[in-house]
Amino acid sequence: MSRLRWFTAGESHGPALSGVLEGLPAGLHVLASDLDRDLARRQQGYGRGGRMKIEKDQAQITAGIRFGRTLGSPVALTVANRDWESWTERMQIAPGGPDAKPVLVPRPGHTDLAGGLKYGATADLRDILERASARETAMRVALGGLARAMLRELGIHIGSYVRSIGHADASEAATVHPELFARDAEALALLADHSEVRALDAESTQRLIAEIDSARARRDTLGGVIEVVATGVPVGLGSHVQWDRKLDGRIAQAMLSIPAMKAVELGDGFAGARSFGSEVHDPIALTGGQLRRTRNRAASRAGSPTANR
Amino acid sequence: MSRLRWFTAGESHGPALSGVLEGLPAGLHVLASDLDRDLARRQQGYGRGGRMKIEKDQAQITAGIRFGRTLGSPVALTVANRDWESWTERMQIAPGGPDAKPVLVPRPGHTDLAGGLKYGATADLRDILERASARETAMRVALGGLARAMLRELGIHIGSYVRSIGHADASEAATVHPELFARDAEALALLADHSEVRALDAESTQRLIAEIDSARARRDTLGGVIEVVATGVPVGLGSHVQWDRKLDGRIAQAMLSIPAMKAVELGDGFAGARSFGSEVHDPIALTGGQLRRTRNRAASRAGSPTANR
Amino acid sequence: MSRLRWFTAGESHGPALSGVLEGLPAGLHVLASDLDRDLARRQQGYGRGGRMKIEKDQAQITAGIRFGRTLGSPVALTVANRDWESWTERMQIAPGGPDAKPVLVPRPGHTDLAGGLKYGATADLRDILERASARETAMRVALGGLARAMLRELGIHIGSYVRSIGHADASEAATVHPELFARDAEALALLADHSEVRALDAESTQRLIAEIDSARARRDTLGGVIEVVATGVPVGLGSHVQWDRKLDGRIAQAMLSIPAMKAVELGDGFAGARSFGSEVHDPIALTGGQLRRTRNRAASRAGSPTANR
Amino acid sequence: MSRLRWFTAGESHGPALSGVLEGLPAGLHVLASDLDRDLARRQQGYGRGGRMKIEKDQAQITAGIRFGRTLGSPVALTVANRDWESWTERMQIAPGGPDAKPVLVPRPGHTDLAGGLKYGATADLRDILERASARETAMRVALGGLARAMLRELGIHIGSYVRSIGHADASEAATVHPELFARDAEALALLADHSEVRALDAESTQRLIAEIDSARARRDTLGGVIEVVATGVPVGLGSHVQWDRKLDGRIAQAMLSIPAMKAVELGDGFAGARSFGSEVHDPIALTGGQLRRTRNRAASRAGSPTANR
Repeated sequence: MSRLRWFTAGESHGPALSGVLEGLPAGLHVLASDLDRDLARRQQGYGRGGRMKIEKDQAQITAGIRFGRTLGSPVALTVANRDWESWTERMQIAPGGPDAKPVLVPRPGHTDLAGGLKYGATADLRDILERASARETAMRVALGGLARAMLRELGIHIGSYVRSIGHADASEAATVHPELFARDAEALALLADHSEVRALDAESTQRLIAEIDSARARRDTLGGVIEVVATGVPVGLGSHVQWDRKLDGRIAQAMLSIPAMKAVELGDGFAGARSFGSEVHDPIALTGGQLRRTRNRAASRAGSPTANR
Repeated sequence: MSRLRWFTAGESHGPALSGVLEGLPAGLHVLASDLDRDLARRQQGYGRGGRMKIEKDQAQITAGIRFGRTLGSPVALTVANRDWESWTERMQIAPGGPDAKPVLVPRPGHTDLAGGLKYGATADLRDILERASARETAMRVALGGLARAMLRELGIHIGSYVRSIGHADASEAATVHPELFARDAEALALLADHSEVRALDAESTQRLIAEIDSARARRDTLGGVIEVVATGVPVGLGSHVQWDRKLDGRIAQAMLSIPAMKAVELGDGFAGARSFGSEVHDPIALTGGQLRRTRNRAASRAGSPTANR
Repeated sequence: MSRLRWFTAGESHGPALSGVLEGLPAGLHVLASDLDRDLARRQQGYGRGGRMKIEKDQAQITAGIRFGRTLGSPVALTVANRDWESWTERMQIAPGGPDAKPVLVPRPGHTDLAGGLKYGATADLRDILERASARETAMRVALGGLARAMLRELGIHIGSYVRSIGHADASEAATVHPELFARDAEALALLADHSEVRALDAESTQRLIAEIDSARARRDTLGGVIEVVATGVPVGLGSHVQWDRKLDGRIAQAMLSIPAMKAVELGDGFAGARSFGSEVHDPIALTGGQLRRTRNRAASRAGSPTANR
Repeated sequence: MSRLRWFTAGESHGPALSGVLEGLPAGLHVLASDLDRDLARRQQGYGRGGRMKIEKDQAQITAGIRFGRTLGSPVALTVANRDWESWTERMQIAPGGPDAKPVLVPRPGHTDLAGGLKYGATADLRDILERASARETAMRVALGGLARAMLRELGIHIGSYVRSIGHADASEAATVHPELFARDAEALALLADHSEVRALDAESTQRLIAEIDSARARRDTLGGVIEVVATGVPVGLGSHVQWDRKLDGRIAQAMLSIPAMKAVELGDGFAGARSFGSEVHDPIALTGGQLRRTRNRAASRAGSPTANR
């Protein structure tokens, strides 16, 4: 039902991540370097572990693109594991094994235990954790770069920034730039790029870094909240006619399919649950012959404050 | 990929809602009256509008069941519109029209505007709002009753209650009954049935009702938060291997495909984002030769605190 | 991936067949009587059993259409079983049973045996044969009528006729009307409607009827071959880019999902396997500034002899 | 709905073909050399063009397998284009172009014309023909080797041979080995491996080769017919309950999604259309307490002559 279909494959310490994206139209301009820029953004981050430094991920395009333009055929991507040499023995594809250092103790907060039981892999939980790793998201980012190439031609942009980490809040900085939220999500993303923690100003950045330092001192980790913004979205994506075509539901699935994501809100989200309907529902006004929503608390179903574009 | 596939059809004031559920195994015991009990629960509620009283929904089974047991073939359900006589003219299926009282003004908080533009129905937004109506959820409830019949045979139960309405909180009542949350979601649902607002005790019920009364006095509406609990879930539902098989994502899609739902959390959800990892991740302990999770803040990926069942 | 998704439900002697078609655009003109005309065509036929006379199938539309036009929402159809009164006891939906006259002997040429084993229904094979019955195709015909309404607006028409029954061949009559095959499949269908056996002329009709009479005298049954023709098909349906988007494959699946169908050819089909490439491949010629195929033995991938429309 | 989902990607003269197979269970034994054996079989053939000699295809596994066994995660395969060096310029992925020698003339019998129009690629039909090429089937063969690893553990084997090429028939040789057809499709495949044209005996092989030589002398090509046999298939694959779960339909789709395939028969196929029902339907007999089909003209729906295994 969706035009775009995609799979990723690949173990965290295997030779490479693979991905196939099926359904892109022909004629889109795509550069491997565009995908690499998104991959670099993913690797950015204050206090990231050593793996992130080793990686320097690069997307290799092996199908679906010729002379820099999509052919309409499926696009295949590979992101090589730059540390594969260190792992050829333990992640060997040819028969052999067992690993001399199997993973026997399931880690809390991971799929190790459930996955090990489901797939009969308790003798070496590495058989599970290699695929359950957040490393898989590198391929999602690369495939997302292909989708971004399509959205760009339609004038749609997507950006994100960090609203909070642990108890440190950085959401106020968002109120300073309403025009980025309304009209230019790409500029929003570039603004966040200036911050090691993807906050929107220097003060917020300091606050978030201090929170991370404090957790690190306790040898602990932290959660956080990100906001994703899309601008230029035309009216009418998704549909109300069948449960699995609802845009809210599809966005929610995509978000909660990312490891470690445990909640998603659209627009006001939970805050809306503590509000009156008159506060939550975005009014529709007739201005200059056009119907316009005068605010956008619902991550508008119309997709845009202006309806008659 | 999912065994169970389903569609609903039907306009809010059309002759009937229809539903087909494909993929149920043969041999499950199903009574239309079981489905009607769930439909009655849906119609319950303090301060509900007149429609809810007219309806008294009843599910009619027309396929897939013989002598009270599923055949393995698709089950078809119908929920008639008990007020159809009043609407035969305005919702006429045969050629005719236009409606003498078309809906021309899009309502905030609804799909009217976006849907009208998408489907070319601005001349009468009724063409949109009839399908976008929350009435559609009556068929989801009835189809859900079929799924419940399957889960029951597997010892899995699902229940829910209301945690808050507007600013009125009713979540504390939940802490009184930890055993219902751990082992008996059906008893939890029955407990909530005693309350007009599906709270878990009388005091919470009063608080939520007062909030509703206050909004009604302002001629306004309110949001709220519900919690859904599943007990008896075996280890290993969903999978980490591909994005669209992740259980969290599929639950999130189902939840946010319900009209008016704008947020979903699993386990601690957003609270987890304000916590240290050590607080959020559920420890795994070896007790009496069994691996057990000693708490369940993640709406556990293992699906259960006990791993080796 | 396909815009149109559909399910049927219903047992042969149950209360009704149900169907849902999801994905039709808004604004198509649909009359229940159009669907009934197709249903009547299905019931036509020399030497058909008693069931066909009882039925006089009629499609009831219960969703997705208002004032004779589609809303873009799913269309739900019901075809009632006109003989349901005789079966209420044996096909009872409420608990009860077992049937006093269970079906214990699996019939050759049917799913009885395999289905009974798969679904654990050997105690009464009626649990299988009711759904495996060719009666299910009545709902396919009705849903097909909805698809036909969409195709009609695009100038695409589909027709069919009988090429052979048993050893009696009726394919020569097809050569008399090349224009119907090239440009007017609907007129082709109407021509076949004049024949009790859907042949294209009186002589063929007599030959096919004689073959049926001869089989009936032996108390035996016969197979046959039908040809389906589509005209007005634009270039570019389906796609070469992924296996499950190939039009040939999707047509083949649809055809062989019909009970009793055991083979399908596109264009020359098996005859092409006995030919030289130069005989099989349809030449492309430049005529008056247009690329045209000068014949159509491949049920052309271009969908049409004229390519540059 | 199907457990196994798969995509291929890759242009004929691009750097590599890629494939992802999602849904394999954990614990299957897979060797890259097993896949290579199937790839070698695909490259075999009397009178094949030069490309086949260059290729010597080898499957590289990059995901989903560790120490020779599947992990339950998606398996990713690559088959490199051994002649890539000669094509780096004309199939360049980075921006550039146009190709100095664009393909401007659409070939009969190919997707060139329809694809070029659909995807806006008439300025260089190479953008279409690279993906539409039969080279894509190399990845299908490799992915099929993974499926074969699963079937092998279930005792299911699949083999094939050539029944005819042009007017030269080789089907009689099949009658000499009824036991291979009934019980050992793998041995059948090995027998065909001895023939340059995959016939089942030396005399047939000579006949088919003579036919090819004769066509070559005319500078023409030929079609043919292959038969695919599966042995060890358990009762109950597929289902009668919904159109898209019917095994016949799914096999037909898979077959006709292969380039150049224009027809498919199951069991007697078209011959059944010229027969009496009593000749076609496979009798079910009770022998020694077991229900058995005494012949198998239907490519039995029960999947096997013995029903009560």
